[in-house]
Amino acid sequence: MANFSEFQPLNENTLIEYIKSIPALSSKLANNFSDISVKEVGDGNLNFVFIVSNSSGSLVIKQALPYVRCIGESWPMTKERAYFESLALKEEGKLCPEHVPEVYHFDRVMSLIGMRYLEPPHIILRKGLIAGVEYPLLAEHISDFMANTLFYTSLLFRSTTEHKRDVAEFCGNVELCRLTEQVVFSDPYKVSEYNRWTSPDLDRDAEAVREDNLLKLEVAELKSKFCERAQALIHGDLHSGSVMVTRESTQVIDPEFAFYGPMGFDIGAYLGNLILAYFSQDGHADQANDRKGYKAWILKSIEDTWNLFHDKFAGLWEKHRNGAGEAYLPAIYNNPEVQLLVQKKYMTDLFHDSLGFGAAKMIRRIVGVAHVEDLESIADTGKRATCERRALNLAKMLLKERRSFESISEIVSAIQQF
Amino acid sequence: MANFSEFQPLNENTLIEYIKSIPALSSKLANNFSDISVKEVGDGNLNFVFIVSNSSGSLVIKQALPYVRCIGESWPMTKERAYFESLALKEEGKLCPEHVPEVYHFDRVMSLIGMRYLEPPHIILRKGLIAGVEYPLLAEHISDFMANTLFYTSLLFRSTTEHKRDVAEFCGNVELCRLTEQVVFSDPYKVSEYNRWTSPDLDRDAEAVREDNLLKLEVAELKSKFCERAQALIHGDLHSGSVMVTRESTQVIDPEFAFYGPMGFDIGAYLGNLILAYFSQDGHADQANDRKGYKAWILKSIEDTWNLFHDKFAGLWEKHRNGAGEAYLPAIYNNPEVQLLVQKKYMTDLFHDSLGFGAAKMIRRIVGVAHVEDLESIADTGKRATCERRALNLAKMLLKERRSFESISEIVSAIQQF
Repeated sequence: MANFSEFQPLNENTLIEYIKSIPALSSKLANNFSDISVKEVGDGNLNFVFIVSNSSGSLVIKQALPYVRCIGESWPMTKERAYFESLALKEEGKLCPEHVPEVYHFDRVMSLIGMRYLEPPHIILRKGLIAGVEYPLLAEHISDFMANTLFYTSLLFRSTTEHKRDVAEFCGNVELCRLTEQVVFSDPYKVSEYNRWTSPDLDRDAEAVREDNLLKLEVAELKSKFCERAQALIHGDLHSGSVMVTRESTQVIDPEFAFYGPMGFDIGAYLGNLILAYFSQDGHADQANDRKGYKAWILKSIEDTWNLFHDKFAGLWEKHRNGAGEAYLPAIYNNPEVQLLVQKKYMTDLFHDSLGFGAAKMIRRIVGVAHVEDLESIADTGKRATCERRALNLAKMLLKERRSFESISEIVSAIQQF
Repeated sequence: MANFSEFQPLNENTLIEYIKSIPALSSKLANNFSDISVKEVGDGNLNFVFIVSNSSGSLVIKQALPYVRCIGESWPMTKERAYFESLALKEEGKLCPEHVPEVYHFDRVMSLIGMRYLEPPHIILRKGLIAGVEYPLLAEHISDFMANTLFYTSLLFRSTTEHKRDVAEFCGNVELCRLTEQVVFSDPYKVSEYNRWTSPDLDRDAEAVREDNLLKLEVAELKSKFCERAQALIHGDLHSGSVMVTRESTQVIDPEFAFYGPMGFDIGAYLGNLILAYFSQDGHADQANDRKGYKAWILKSIEDTWNLFHDKFAGLWEKHRNGAGEAYLPAIYNNPEVQLLVQKKYMTDLFHDSLGFGAAKMIRRIVGVAHVEDLESIADTGKRATCERRALNLAKMLLKERRSFESISEIVSAIQQF
């Protein structure tokens, strides 16, 4: 019998022992271990992920290791991140249960989360985007997730007492924040051993990023917001690899980077990754499918996502205008003109933040350490470089000129021009 | 023998017993209690302050009570603030020992700080400003305090690991932050039982503040920064009542409102209170002294304070450019042009923040709960109202148009025009 009172990485055998010892987990399998199947599917960068199932049911066990899995033990990374992931999953699950997998069990010593298995045909959204699959409810669902999780954890709904308590708690997730600071806001703008890009095609482009003073000025402002501004509980890594989808279902997973940060970081991460998916389509086009229709769908999804988010977020604000939120007290913001004025400013600032963070997330996926499969899977490097350069140039423009855009339709037009 | 193992408010008798029980305190009096003198001098709003002295030495005992002293037990206020005050005094004392009184002892159970007694002729700066006393080293000293405490606790000097650790700790001072949120950013802009103003003279002016949508828009932005932006360890209440002075010495006291917040809140509090002092001078003018010379000195002090702060802060930045600070990594901000660009933006944003917070602090002192003696001590209500209206109108203009100012000399010109 293994000892689970101190941390140990599980394997397929000890995993079963572990599940047997935890009723909240074994009950999901009807305590039947005779026909059990276990599959390790952690294709992410950081963790072990086991799918455990039998004829009665299924679950997922996710275990954090004390280093970045894709790089190895040379890049240590606190396994305490599992604690923050479980906190975030539970909070997001309360605020948006339709789009967050249920947590069955958390074990801080083992850095282990037991949760719902998102059964087939759920796949990672990124893989669906590469395959050219349209998801008719995606924008509706993801805007629900963003509006609910961001609004309800902000000072539009919360008291400053609750806010400071939760900000303090999530300050503990500093190591994951530091990973983001490095790979998003720092490495792409300097010479770093971790950076890579399609070479030699993009050598000059990568160098241009490192030599662009105005770009560096803007990225510093975003980094400052990321490090200093506790606006809401953000997912912290809301790209298309953190979303699982079917045509009917959208589930947001993997919030291990969660902390109180700027809302625009989540919105931007999601939109930026859709834009990367858009620019990768030409690399996936072939004689059977020119991907033109799919590119139009992605653009529509980008536009819908922001517009739906905007309206839902503003709707929640309206609904809770006289609630406990302390940012805009109803006794002060007491007439329609001033309510419109503050909301317009809030949403415009959030839009510009989202564009900035989205652009930064695109840039880092092209000249930084971790790339996206949307582009990586384009075998022809010349084609890939062309797609990447368009995305990079759009992102640089967005980062520098984001404040001149007023609506998402202007962004869609700009994307089409690159 | 009293029992100090649980909280009790001290009186002049139990105070002596307490001091006897603490070597770090009794040693300051050479353990000699025969010729001791005790004086309670807490003229502030929140605490007991005892001066204890004998022929061998002296010390101050400051004890926090579990309510706002000036209002009474009906306004509860955690006595845990003494813990955060002691933390801040120690940190500020390390960073700027010349301008912060030494802490001898802290007792969390008793909410009690034992510290250096600032001996005569030290007086509260506000009283000196009312009396018309010039302090030739004041701008030099206070700019030292602000530059050192703000720079060294910001991400210009610190790693994000240290930053998040300390941000989390000071999140515990939430009740004091909430008091500021209420009295600075909320009450003056709504009907509140606590508000008062020179009536009936300023009735219409107070109403105009409550009805000014653009003012409310701007104050919301500042409140958001106050609640969400952990830029540096700020004093949190840096007005002229929190500074003790002689011609040679400047000492910053009372950081019980300290937390990680926007730097401009400290700078603005200080400058805003100097501007209030300026506008109060006409109310103190008489045939013997028209105060014109003194008004010019105040204006010069305002200008010098910002300019000296700017140069010292920029100097510290330059000095530590290659240090551990993580906001602007030297490998990214690696050429003089980009260094100038980011510094110019940083200092301009900080200037505008300071103007905004300073203006908000002025407004609340004229139409909010707690007024300043500079104006309150003008016996002639008509004269007082005139001074207050000028200050209020300047502050409203500054709050709304702060982004159009580029230098402190433009602010001085604006002050002179009101």
